[in-house]
Amino acid sequence: MKNIIGREIPDEILKGRKLFQGQFENMDEVVKTTPKIKPIKPDDKKLLNSIEEAIVKSGLKDGMTISFHHHFREGDYILNSVVDAIAKLGIKNLTLASSSLGSVHKPLIEHIKNGVITKITASGLRGALAEAISNGILKEPVIIRSHGGRARAVEAGDIKVDVAFLGAPAADEFGNASGSRGTANCGSLGYAMVDAQYADKVIILTDTIVEFPNMPASINQTYVDYVVKIDSIGDPKGIASGATRYTKNPKELLIAEYARQVITKSPYFKDGFSFQTGTGGSALAVSRFLKDEMMENNIKASFALGGITKPIVEMHEEGLIKHIYDVQDFDLVGVDSIAKNPNHHEIDASFYANPHNKGCIASKLDVVVLSALEIDTDFNVNVITGSEGVLRGASGGHCDTAASAKLSVIVSPLIRGRIPCVVEEVTTVITPGESIDVVVTEAGVAVNPKRTDLIESYKAAGLPLVTIEELKEKAFRIVGVPDKIEFDNQVVAIIEYRDGTVIDVVRKVK
Amino acid sequence: MKNIIGREIPDEILKGRKLFQGQFENMDEVVKTTPKIKPIKPDDKKLLNSIEEAIVKSGLKDGMTISFHHHFREGDYILNSVVDAIAKLGIKNLTLASSSLGSVHKPLIEHIKNGVITKITASGLRGALAEAISNGILKEPVIIRSHGGRARAVEAGDIKVDVAFLGAPAADEFGNASGSRGTANCGSLGYAMVDAQYADKVIILTDTIVEFPNMPASINQTYVDYVVKIDSIGDPKGIASGATRYTKNPKELLIAEYARQVITKSPYFKDGFSFQTGTGGSALAVSRFLKDEMMENNIKASFALGGITKPIVEMHEEGLIKHIYDVQDFDLVGVDSIAKNPNHHEIDASFYANPHNKGCIASKLDVVVLSALEIDTDFNVNVITGSEGVLRGASGGHCDTAASAKLSVIVSPLIRGRIPCVVEEVTTVITPGESIDVVVTEAGVAVNPKRTDLIESYKAAGLPLVTIEELKEKAFRIVGVPDKIEFDNQVVAIIEYRDGTVIDVVRKVK
Repeated sequence: MKNIIGREIPDEILKGRKLFQGQFENMDEVVKTTPKIKPIKPDDKKLLNSIEEAIVKSGLKDGMTISFHHHFREGDYILNSVVDAIAKLGIKNLTLASSSLGSVHKPLIEHIKNGVITKITASGLRGALAEAISNGILKEPVIIRSHGGRARAVEAGDIKVDVAFLGAPAADEFGNASGSRGTANCGSLGYAMVDAQYADKVIILTDTIVEFPNMPASINQTYVDYVVKIDSIGDPKGIASGATRYTKNPKELLIAEYARQVITKSPYFKDGFSFQTGTGGSALAVSRFLKDEMMENNIKASFALGGITKPIVEMHEEGLIKHIYDVQDFDLVGVDSIAKNPNHHEIDASFYANPHNKGCIASKLDVVVLSALEIDTDFNVNVITGSEGVLRGASGGHCDTAASAKLSVIVSPLIRGRIPCVVEEVTTVITPGESIDVVVTEAGVAVNPKRTDLIESYKAAGLPLVTIEELKEKAFRIVGVPDKIEFDNQVVAIIEYRDGTVIDVVRKVK
Repeated sequence: MKNIIGREIPDEILKGRKLFQGQFENMDEVVKTTPKIKPIKPDDKKLLNSIEEAIVKSGLKDGMTISFHHHFREGDYILNSVVDAIAKLGIKNLTLASSSLGSVHKPLIEHIKNGVITKITASGLRGALAEAISNGILKEPVIIRSHGGRARAVEAGDIKVDVAFLGAPAADEFGNASGSRGTANCGSLGYAMVDAQYADKVIILTDTIVEFPNMPASINQTYVDYVVKIDSIGDPKGIASGATRYTKNPKELLIAEYARQVITKSPYFKDGFSFQTGTGGSALAVSRFLKDEMMENNIKASFALGGITKPIVEMHEEGLIKHIYDVQDFDLVGVDSIAKNPNHHEIDASFYANPHNKGCIASKLDVVVLSALEIDTDFNVNVITGSEGVLRGASGGHCDTAASAKLSVIVSPLIRGRIPCVVEEVTTVITPGESIDVVVTEAGVAVNPKRTDLIESYKAAGLPLVTIEELKEKAFRIVGVPDKIEFDNQVVAIIEYRDGTVIDVVRKVK
């Protein structure tokens, strides 16, 4: 069966699943799931001596689902330690529902081979683990979900977490857990907060036990069954990097300059507007350019959203952004800010981007700037598979914010190395073209034809407008038409759209 | 059938209900309920023009359950306005699940007579409405629940709220609602927060629409379906009184002095202890005396809990209390403090006292000081029915904190007017005697015999110890043995213990 954007979805994948029908076509009334709670009496203690004891007390059994968050990113020690301990206890056939997975989680390959982990869902996959999965190591396809889509799935019970193992930089003995006040801080615990609310058993792992009550807490005691003190939750260098340098790359600066104009010449750039910009050279430069223009025009943003970085914090502290909504911090400046700035608000992934609640904050976005691995002539975007067809990225909040924002801007070089970034058809669709308004490259700006209003504005402003087909042709002229990637029939990943429908699949590489 | 404390519960009341078995006997695994959510798209608007429009859009129908909070107390305009509008729309046979009801809600009598409201559950009942209910105006008994018990019931689905009408001092057009930043502020919205999370439809009513985003919000946009701007939510004078004067009544001061010693001579009075004191002359004086002793002994409290008053805020601002957990504010000083003091934390009723979550904050209390209308020789406490047997009080957090705290102290005069406060058997049991450790009167201090440890400490400290029977005898000697109240057979109220079991019933007065 082909879905509405023409992606072929094998029948066996569709059992019990719906085909993607359009960005806001699956918005009927939903029912949330029901965690099972074991009440705690005043005298009960939560502090345990080891991960093993916590696993045993949680009642974890073969076939259950475990979850982790990715706030410690490439510095994470939690996931590997816990899965090692589970393996030693002889528990098998688990579903791993991590909010994302990185290169640091390479040891999972052994646990997949041993049958400890037999299913995975995550926002992204990188490194050796991603490669192994692309090569078909798992019998069941991985389910790739966006950040909002994962929150939706947890709340709906599509992901029913039996035991959540949540690392926290600091916690008290009764489970009040925070991303600050520890030795290896990550700031926001936005992804973990959803699991804490919906998992049957919640275990906090920390290397820093603080005096009761640990307040303000990201995860409060009423959601926590057990607390385990371990030696170290992770490598602070991998958790949050201190360096967020401005790019000096002329191509990135040109893209950022075009993106600035795309934003400031749009009807959305006015006092009280809201925006999200990501990481990466161009996106960070966009924030800087935007800042200058906001100061010149005396424009203040009502809020900035997303993964938070130094430029956003600086604009907040200078009064250019009134509120920061923070689901995760990308650098140490963000981590420090959330602990001290009262209008830097921690939010959970459902508040961030779940399409099935009564209005996530993404839905109030005016402008989002997003990156891409590939964009095709239908404006579909790929941020998950590389040029060899191998999994190497993350869905993240891409399709969530693109669908929600009034102006969705993709910033991308026309080519990377010898690889064209604008193509006839993307390898994998994460975000459907209907969600994308503008594609900005160093070779010009392509506006989605349905946005005739924007085309008029940008023409008047003298922006270098091109069609998306022209961008593709130009890329192909420079590096040639890319060879078609050859895939096997086996589906190694299902790409779930934020509303739970199937937008694409990833097949095994040959 | 008699329950474990000897209260006669008629069989017809027990259908589908369990008898009270002891304060921590009903603590098995529980499942939370599932609200139905209608997702909202980015372009959807929530702001409506009238209460009527909100009622119609909510889909409210005959037989459904509506809820309100009591943060505006005797100044509340919301409940009467909404029920009037419902009546005009011809909707009938509703269950009213308010967190509490007061004298201001007298107009409900007409709506009961008209068949608009046919069932009620609330923490308390006062004034003409309470009298009418005591006289049997409702066919179905009212269910009286504690603050923690109501949160439990909402989360368990025992109260399934179809539409919650939640007044908020300020809100933005997308439903972010707060108890501060309006013209008639109430501070914490702790009771409303639970309804917002579990009701299918949530309507915010406010007289102050503020710029988006209204942050920090007590109730956030993801829980809200509609927002209605009305002329006035209530009378600020009734919402929070500015006056919290210290008592000069010598009897109250003597009780407070004994209570001070009961606390300071206990093993719990040490650095890092936690406490809740209520309102009323003696309780406020206890806070004052405690403060002096804490300063003298260089003792700081880790947290204070409960309905928050001026003395608690002062101790917090002077560094004597590190954290305030606030489910409701009792005066304007509390209201101002929660808006400005970062360690004055707003909490919802479930976090406050729900016995069926993974550890409410009440369960971390060392000391609670509570009042009483009657105490009996089994230490059972009545705070709901007056000397004529008529409903005239509120369950509140009484049984929640008494069960949870390590030291539960009742402060009460021996007699009020010509009425003894220590009796053979209380008219109605809200809190079972097993939860009460000490009863303090001006005529002496009675310790629950099971607390031999406390008796030893207090004896050594020279406290005027008496038995509870001696207190009762003394009261009877002064005012005579009270006449037995005569009741009809009709049950007008079921007293539900915090865990959902039936601890007592209130019968119609003759």
